[in-house]
Amino acid sequence: MKSIDFYFDYSSPFGYLAATRVGALAARHGRAVNWYPILLGAVFKATGSPVVATMPLKGEYTAHDALRSARFHGIPLKLPSKFPIAGQAPARITCWVRNHAPGRVEAAVLALYRAYFLDDQDISSPEVAARVAGQAGFDAALAATQDEAIKAQLKTEVEAAIARKVFGSPMMFIDAEPFWGLDRMDQMERWLQTGGF
Amino acid sequence: MKSIDFYFDYSSPFGYLAATRVGALAARHGRAVNWYPILLGAVFKATGSPVVATMPLKGEYTAHDALRSARFHGIPLKLPSKFPIAGQAPARITCWVRNHAPGRVEAAVLALYRAYFLDDQDISSPEVAARVAGQAGFDAALAATQDEAIKAQLKTEVEAAIARKVFGSPMMFIDAEPFWGLDRMDQMERWLQTGGF
Repeated sequence: MKSIDFYFDYSSPFGYLAATRVGALAARHGRAVNWYPILLGAVFKATGSPVVATMPLKGEYTAHDALRSARFHGIPLKLPSKFPIAGQAPARITCWVRNHAPGRVEAAVLALYRAYFLDDQDISSPEVAARVAGQAGFDAALAATQDEAIKAQLKTEVEAAIARKVFGSPMMFIDAEPFWGLDRMDQMERWLQTGGF
Repeated sequence: MKSIDFYFDYSSPFGYLAATRVGALAARHGRAVNWYPILLGAVFKATGSPVVATMPLKGEYTAHDALRSARFHGIPLKLPSKFPIAGQAPARITCWVRNHAPGRVEAAVLALYRAYFLDDQDISSPEVAARVAGQAGFDAALAATQDEAIKAQLKTEVEAAIARKVFGSPMMFIDAEPFWGLDRMDQMERWLQTGGF
Protein backbone atom coordinates (compact mmCIF):
# COMPACT_ATOMS: atom_id res chain seq x y z
CA MET A 1 0.00 0.00 0.00
CA LYS A 2 1.29 3.43 -0.87
CA SER A 3 1.68 5.88 1.96
CA ILE A 4 2.08 9.45 3.11
CA ASP A 5 5.14 9.91 5.34
CA PHE A 6 4.24 12.26 8.18
CA TYR A 7 7.09 13.89 10.17
CA PHE A 8 6.08 15.80 13.28
CA ASP A 9 7.35 17.22 16.56
CA TYR A 10 5.15 16.86 19.64
CA SER A 11 5.72 20.50 20.52
CA SER A 12 4.41 21.75 17.16
CA PRO A 13 0.84 23.10 17.12
CA PHE A 14 0.72 22.85 13.34
CA GLY A 15 1.96 19.26 13.65
CA TYR A 16 -1.00 18.58 15.93
CA LEU A 17 -3.48 20.27 13.60
CA ALA A 18 -2.16 18.37 10.57
CA ALA A 19 -2.12 15.07 12.51
CA THR A 20 -5.87 15.35 13.02
CA ARG A 21 -6.40 15.63 9.24
CA VAL A 22 -3.73 13.54 7.49
CA GLY A 23 -5.41 10.20 8.19
CA ALA A 24 -8.57 11.23 6.34
CA LEU A 25 -6.55 12.78 3.50
CA ALA A 26 -4.59 9.56 3.04
CA ALA A 27 -7.74 7.41 3.26
CA ARG A 28 -9.50 9.45 0.55
CA HIS A 29 -6.69 8.41 -1.80
CA GLY A 30 -6.19 4.82 -0.65
CA ARG A 31 -2.97 5.47 1.23
CA ALA A 32 -1.67 4.65 4.70
CA VAL A 33 0.18 7.12 6.93
CA ASN A 34 3.69 6.44 8.24
CA TRP A 35 4.10 8.41 11.49
CA TYR A 36 7.63 9.65 12.19
CA PRO A 37 8.14 11.71 15.33
CA ILE A 38 11.14 14.04 15.04
CA LEU A 39 12.91 16.39 17.44
CA LEU A 40 12.97 19.96 16.16
CA GLY A 41 15.94 20.80 18.40
CA ALA A 42 18.14 18.45 16.38
CA VAL A 43 16.57 19.57 13.10
CA PHE A 44 17.07 23.28 13.83
CA LYS A 45 20.73 22.58 14.63
CA ALA A 46 21.09 21.19 11.10
CA THR A 47 19.41 24.19 9.45
CA GLY A 48 20.69 26.98 11.71
CA SER A 49 17.11 28.00 12.48
CA PRO A 50 16.36 29.78 15.74
CA VAL A 51 13.52 28.36 17.87
CA VAL A 52 10.46 29.99 16.30
CA ALA A 53 8.48 30.27 19.56
CA THR A 54 11.07 32.59 21.10
CA MET A 55 11.83 34.70 18.00
CA PRO A 56 10.92 38.39 18.29
CA LEU A 57 7.71 39.27 16.38
CA LYS A 58 7.46 35.91 14.63
CA GLY A 59 7.05 33.86 17.82
CA GLU A 60 4.08 35.91 18.99
CA TYR A 61 2.43 35.85 15.56
CA THR A 62 2.88 32.09 15.26
CA ALA A 63 0.98 31.43 18.49
CA HIS A 64 -1.82 33.75 17.33
CA ASP A 65 -1.84 32.12 13.90
CA ALA A 66 -2.01 28.59 15.34
CA LEU A 67 -5.14 29.46 17.31
CA ARG A 68 -6.72 31.23 14.33
CA SER A 69 -5.83 28.36 11.98
CA ALA A 70 -7.42 25.91 14.44
CA ARG A 71 -10.62 27.96 14.42
CA PHE A 72 -10.48 28.27 10.62
CA HIS A 73 -10.36 24.48 10.26
CA GLY A 74 -12.70 23.76 13.18
CA ILE A 75 -10.12 21.85 15.21
CA PRO A 76 -10.05 22.34 18.99
CA LEU A 77 -6.73 23.73 20.27
CA LYS A 78 -5.54 25.37 23.48
CA LEU A 79 -2.00 26.66 23.74
CA PRO A 80 -0.28 24.76 26.59
CA SER A 81 1.05 26.70 29.56
CA LYS A 82 4.51 25.13 29.07
CA PHE A 83 5.66 25.70 25.47
CA PRO A 84 7.75 24.52 23.72
CA ILE A 85 8.64 21.20 25.36
CA ALA A 86 11.19 18.48 24.66
CA GLY A 87 9.56 15.66 22.71
CA GLN A 88 11.78 12.68 23.56
CA ALA A 89 9.31 10.86 25.84
CA PRO A 90 6.24 10.91 23.55
CA ALA A 91 8.45 10.32 20.49
CA ARG A 92 9.97 7.19 22.05
CA ILE A 93 6.53 5.91 23.01
CA THR A 94 5.43 6.45 19.43
CA CYS A 95 8.38 4.41 18.12
CA TRP A 96 7.49 1.67 20.59
CA VAL A 97 3.84 1.61 19.49
CA ARG A 98 4.94 1.44 15.86
CA ASN A 99 7.12 -1.55 16.66
CA HIS A 100 4.46 -3.40 18.67
CA ALA A 101 1.07 -2.26 17.34
CA PRO A 102 1.68 -0.75 13.90
CA GLY A 103 -2.05 -0.48 13.17
CA ARG A 104 -2.65 1.75 16.17
CA VAL A 105 -0.01 4.45 15.81
CA GLU A 106 -2.49 7.16 14.78
CA ALA A 107 -4.50 6.56 17.96
CA ALA A 108 -1.37 6.88 20.09
CA VAL A 109 -0.19 10.04 18.29
CA LEU A 110 -3.57 11.74 18.62
CA ALA A 111 -3.91 10.75 22.30
CA LEU A 112 -0.51 12.28 23.07
CA TYR A 113 -1.08 15.40 20.98
CA ARG A 114 -4.53 15.99 22.49
CA ALA A 115 -3.19 15.57 26.01
CA TYR A 116 -0.75 18.40 25.27
CA PHE A 117 -2.75 20.70 22.99
CA LEU A 118 -6.20 20.24 24.54
CA ASP A 119 -5.71 19.18 28.16
CA ASP A 120 -2.48 21.09 28.91
CA GLN A 121 -0.68 17.99 30.14
CA ASP A 122 3.11 18.20 30.06
CA ILE A 123 3.88 15.18 27.90
CA SER A 124 7.62 15.94 28.05
CA SER A 125 7.42 14.08 31.39
CA PRO A 126 7.88 10.31 30.80
CA GLU A 127 5.34 9.55 33.55
CA VAL A 128 2.70 11.86 32.06
CA ALA A 129 3.30 10.63 28.51
CA ALA A 130 3.16 7.00 29.67
CA ARG A 131 -0.07 7.61 31.60
CA VAL A 132 -1.67 9.17 28.52
CA ALA A 133 -0.52 6.24 26.39
CA GLY A 134 -1.75 3.81 29.06
CA GLN A 135 -5.21 5.38 29.01
CA ALA A 136 -5.18 4.87 25.24
CA GLY A 137 -4.36 1.17 25.78
CA PHE A 138 -0.56 1.07 25.47
CA ASP A 139 0.67 -0.45 28.72
CA ALA A 140 4.44 -0.75 28.40
CA ALA A 141 4.91 2.89 27.47
CA LEU A 142 6.92 4.01 30.52
CA ALA A 143 9.55 1.34 29.92
CA ALA A 144 9.74 2.47 26.29
CA THR A 145 10.86 5.97 27.32
CA GLN A 146 14.00 4.46 28.94
CA ASP A 147 14.63 1.61 26.50
CA GLU A 148 18.11 1.88 24.94
CA ALA A 149 17.03 0.26 21.67
CA ILE A 150 14.11 2.67 21.33
CA LYS A 151 16.37 5.63 22.12
CA ALA A 152 18.76 4.52 19.38
CA GLN A 153 15.87 3.94 16.96
CA LEU A 154 14.55 7.47 17.47
CA LYS A 155 18.01 8.97 17.06
CA THR A 156 18.52 7.05 13.81
CA GLU A 157 15.10 8.09 12.52
CA VAL A 158 15.70 11.78 13.27
CA GLU A 159 19.03 11.58 11.42
CA ALA A 160 17.28 9.88 8.50
CA ALA A 161 14.66 12.63 8.49
CA ILE A 162 17.34 15.32 8.28
CA ALA A 163 19.07 13.33 5.52
CA ARG A 164 15.71 13.44 3.70
CA LYS A 165 15.77 17.24 4.15
CA VAL A 166 13.05 17.47 6.77
CA PHE A 167 13.49 20.93 8.33
CA GLY A 168 10.21 21.60 10.15
CA SER A 169 6.94 20.20 11.50
CA PRO A 170 4.70 18.97 10.05
CA MET A 171 6.57 17.82 6.98
CA MET A 172 4.86 15.32 4.71
CA PHE A 173 5.97 13.33 1.71
CA ILE A 174 3.84 11.93 -1.08
CA ASP A 175 6.34 9.51 -2.61
CA ALA A 176 9.37 11.79 -3.15
CA GLU A 177 7.45 15.10 -3.05
CA PRO A 178 7.87 17.17 0.15
CA PHE A 179 5.17 19.39 1.66
CA TRP A 180 5.81 21.58 4.69
CA GLY A 181 2.98 22.80 6.86
CA LEU A 182 -0.71 22.39 7.53
CA ASP A 183 -1.33 24.97 4.82
CA ARG A 184 0.07 22.71 2.11
CA MET A 185 -2.63 20.07 2.59
CA ASP A 186 -4.66 21.70 -0.20
CA GLN A 187 -1.72 21.17 -2.55
CA MET A 188 -1.36 17.60 -1.26
CA GLU A 189 -5.00 16.91 -2.04
CA ARG A 190 -4.57 18.06 -5.63
CA TRP A 191 -1.25 16.20 -5.93
CA LEU A 192 -2.99 12.97 -4.90
CA GLN A 193 -5.91 13.65 -7.25
CA THR A 194 -3.79 14.45 -10.28
CA GLY A 195 -0.51 12.61 -9.73
CA GLY A 196 1.43 15.87 -9.54
CA PHE A 197 1.30 19.33 -11.07
CA MET B 1 -12.40 53.60 2.19
CA LYS B 2 -11.16 50.70 4.27
CA SER B 3 -8.01 48.99 3.14
CA ILE B 4 -5.72 45.99 3.26
CA ASP B 5 -2.15 46.93 4.18
CA PHE B 6 0.24 44.88 2.06
CA TYR B 7 3.90 44.66 3.16
CA PHE B 8 6.29 43.03 0.72
CA ASP B 9 9.95 42.65 -0.24
CA TYR B 10 10.87 42.74 -3.93
CA SER B 11 13.07 39.69 -3.48
CA SER B 12 10.22 37.55 -2.10
CA PRO B 13 8.59 35.10 -4.54
CA PHE B 14 5.60 34.71 -2.22
CA GLY B 15 5.36 38.50 -2.06
CA TYR B 16 5.14 38.51 -5.86
CA LEU B 17 2.53 35.73 -5.94
CA ALA B 18 0.39 37.46 -3.30
CA ALA B 19 0.77 40.84 -5.05
CA THR B 20 -0.91 39.41 -8.14
CA ARG B 21 -3.95 38.39 -6.04
CA VAL B 22 -4.43 40.93 -3.26
CA GLY B 23 -5.98 43.60 -5.50
CA ALA B 24 -8.83 41.29 -6.51
CA LEU B 25 -9.29 40.07 -2.93
CA ALA B 26 -9.58 43.64 -1.68
CA ALA B 27 -11.93 44.65 -4.51
CA ARG B 28 -14.29 41.73 -3.75
CA HIS B 29 -14.80 43.25 -0.32
CA GLY B 30 -14.84 46.94 -1.26
CA ARG B 31 -11.37 47.70 0.05
CA ALA B 32 -8.29 49.44 -1.33
CA VAL B 33 -4.73 48.13 -0.99
CA ASN B 34 -1.97 50.14 0.67
CA TRP B 35 1.35 48.96 -0.79
CA TYR B 36 4.32 49.09 1.61
CA PRO B 37 7.65 47.85 0.28
CA ILE B 38 9.92 46.62 3.07
CA LEU B 39 13.53 45.43 3.22
CA LEU B 40 13.78 41.92 4.65
CA GLY B 41 17.44 42.47 5.56
CA ALA B 42 16.42 45.08 8.14
CA VAL B 43 13.44 42.99 9.26
CA PHE B 44 15.51 39.81 9.74
CA LYS B 45 17.98 41.81 11.85
CA ALA B 46 15.09 42.66 14.18
CA THR B 47 13.87 39.06 14.47
CA GLY B 48 17.23 37.25 14.40
CA SER B 49 16.09 35.24 11.41
CA PRO B 50 18.69 33.85 9.02
CA VAL B 51 18.18 34.56 5.30
CA VAL B 52 15.80 31.78 4.27
CA ALA B 53 17.19 31.38 0.73
CA THR B 54 20.60 30.33 2.06
CA MET B 55 19.43 28.14 4.96
CA PRO B 56 20.34 24.45 4.67
CA LEU B 57 17.37 22.26 3.64
CA LYS B 58 14.79 25.03 4.05
CA GLY B 59 16.25 27.28 1.35
CA GLU B 60 16.11 24.57 -1.29
CA TYR B 61 12.57 23.55 -0.32
CA THR B 62 11.35 27.14 -0.37
CA ALA B 63 12.46 27.64 -3.99
CA HIS B 64 10.76 24.36 -4.96
CA ASP B 65 7.64 25.33 -3.03
CA ALA B 66 7.46 28.77 -4.64
CA LEU B 67 7.42 27.22 -8.12
CA ARG B 68 4.86 24.58 -7.11
CA SER B 69 2.66 27.19 -5.37
CA ALA B 70 2.78 29.31 -8.53
CA ARG B 71 1.59 26.33 -10.60
CA PHE B 72 -1.06 25.50 -7.98
CA HIS B 73 -2.52 29.00 -8.27
CA GLY B 74 -1.92 29.35 -12.01
CA ILE B 75 0.45 32.32 -11.70
CA PRO B 76 3.49 32.46 -14.01
CA LEU B 77 6.82 32.49 -12.13
CA LYS B 78 10.46 31.87 -13.05
CA LEU B 79 13.10 31.90 -10.35
CA PRO B 80 15.58 34.68 -11.21
CA SER B 81 19.23 33.79 -11.83
CA LYS B 82 20.31 36.32 -9.16
CA PHE B 83 18.48 35.62 -5.90
CA PRO B 84 17.97 37.13 -3.41
CA ILE B 85 18.59 40.77 -4.33
CA ALA B 86 18.64 44.05 -2.40
CA GLY B 87 15.30 45.81 -2.79
CA GLN B 88 16.22 49.45 -2.16
CA ALA B 89 15.90 50.68 -5.77
CA PRO B 90 12.45 49.25 -6.58
CA ALA B 91 11.22 50.04 -3.05
CA ARG B 92 12.21 53.70 -3.43
CA ILE B 93 10.53 53.89 -6.82
CA THR B 94 7.40 52.47 -5.24
CA CYS B 95 7.44 55.14 -2.51
CA TRP B 96 7.84 57.77 -5.20
CA VAL B 97 4.92 56.43 -7.23
CA ARG B 98 2.78 56.38 -4.10
CA ASN B 99 3.64 60.03 -3.47
CA HIS B 100 2.98 61.17 -7.05
CA ALA B 101 0.43 58.76 -8.55
CA PRO B 102 -1.31 57.03 -5.64
CA GLY B 103 -3.89 55.40 -7.89
CA ARG B 104 -1.22 53.60 -9.92
CA VAL B 105 0.91 51.93 -7.28
CA GLU B 106 -0.38 48.43 -8.05
CA ALA B 107 0.65 48.82 -11.70
CA ALA B 108 4.14 49.89 -10.68
CA VAL B 109 4.53 47.08 -8.14
CA LEU B 110 3.40 44.43 -10.60
CA ALA B 111 5.63 45.80 -13.38
CA LEU B 112 8.68 45.65 -11.10
CA TYR B 113 7.81 42.23 -9.67
CA ARG B 114 7.15 40.78 -13.14
CA ALA B 115 10.42 42.16 -14.47
CA TYR B 116 12.21 40.23 -11.73
CA PHE B 117 10.11 37.07 -11.39
CA LEU B 118 9.14 36.59 -15.04
CA ASP B 119 11.79 38.31 -17.16
CA ASP B 120 14.83 37.73 -14.94
CA GLN B 121 15.76 41.40 -14.88
CA ASP B 122 17.94 42.46 -11.97
CA ILE B 123 15.76 45.18 -10.48
CA SER B 124 18.27 45.76 -7.66
CA SER B 125 20.03 47.94 -10.25
CA PRO B 126 18.59 51.50 -10.12
CA GLU B 127 18.95 51.77 -13.90
CA VAL B 128 17.08 48.52 -14.57
CA ALA B 129 14.35 49.31 -12.03
CA ALA B 130 13.95 52.81 -13.46
CA ARG B 131 13.74 51.45 -17.01
CA VAL B 132 11.02 49.00 -15.97
CA ALA B 133 9.12 51.77 -14.22
CA GLY B 134 9.60 54.02 -17.24
CA GLN B 135 8.11 51.41 -19.55
CA ALA B 136 5.11 51.32 -17.17
CA GLY B 137 4.77 55.11 -17.51
CA PHE B 138 6.69 56.42 -14.50
CA ASP B 139 9.30 58.75 -15.90
CA ALA B 140 11.14 60.24 -12.92
CA ALA B 141 11.93 56.86 -11.40
CA LEU B 142 15.74 56.96 -11.67
CA ALA B 143 15.90 60.24 -9.76
CA ALA B 144 13.68 58.69 -7.08
CA THR B 145 16.27 55.98 -6.35
CA GLN B 146 18.77 58.67 -5.29
CA ASP B 147 16.36 61.15 -3.69
CA GLU B 148 17.27 61.81 -0.04
CA ALA B 149 13.68 62.45 1.02
CA ILE B 150 12.54 59.17 -0.58
CA LYS B 151 15.42 57.29 1.07
CA ALA B 152 14.37 58.71 4.45
CA GLN B 153 10.72 57.89 3.77
CA LEU B 154 11.52 54.25 3.00
CA LYS B 155 13.69 53.95 6.09
CA THR B 156 10.92 55.40 8.27
CA GLU B 157 8.34 53.08 6.72
CA VAL B 158 10.47 49.98 7.27
CA GLU B 159 10.93 50.97 10.91
CA ALA B 160 7.18 51.51 11.21
CA ALA B 161 6.57 48.07 9.71
CA ILE B 162 8.86 46.43 12.27
CA ALA B 163 7.12 48.42 15.02
CA ARG B 164 3.87 46.91 13.71
CA LYS B 165 5.50 43.48 14.08
CA VAL B 166 5.98 42.78 10.38
CA PHE B 167 8.55 39.95 10.26
CA GLY B 168 8.24 38.50 6.73
CA SER B 169 6.92 38.94 3.19
CA PRO B 170 4.13 39.10 2.27
CA MET B 171 2.53 40.32 5.46
CA MET B 172 -0.97 41.71 5.24
CA PHE B 173 -3.25 43.46 7.69
CA ILE B 174 -7.03 43.61 7.69
CA ASP B 175 -7.54 46.44 10.15
CA ALA B 176 -5.45 45.24 13.12
CA GLU B 177 -5.38 41.54 12.16
CA PRO B 178 -2.04 40.29 10.73
CA PHE B 179 -1.73 37.56 8.09
CA TRP B 180 1.63 36.22 6.95
CA GLY B 181 2.04 34.48 3.65
CA LEU B 182 0.29 33.73 0.38
CA ASP B 183 -1.24 30.70 2.08
CA ARG B 184 -3.23 32.84 4.52
CA MET B 185 -5.29 34.47 1.76
CA ASP B 186 -7.99 31.84 2.30
CA GLN B 187 -8.25 32.94 5.94
CA MET B 188 -8.25 36.57 4.81
CA GLU B 189 -11.17 35.89 2.46
CA ARG B 190 -13.21 34.37 5.28
CA TRP B 191 -12.16 37.17 7.65
CA LEU B 192 -13.46 39.76 5.19
CA GLN B 193 -16.66 37.78 4.62
CA THR B 194 -17.45 37.26 8.29
CA GLY B 195 -15.77 40.14 10.09
CA GLY B 196 -13.43 37.80 11.95
CA PHE B 197 -13.49 34.30 13.40
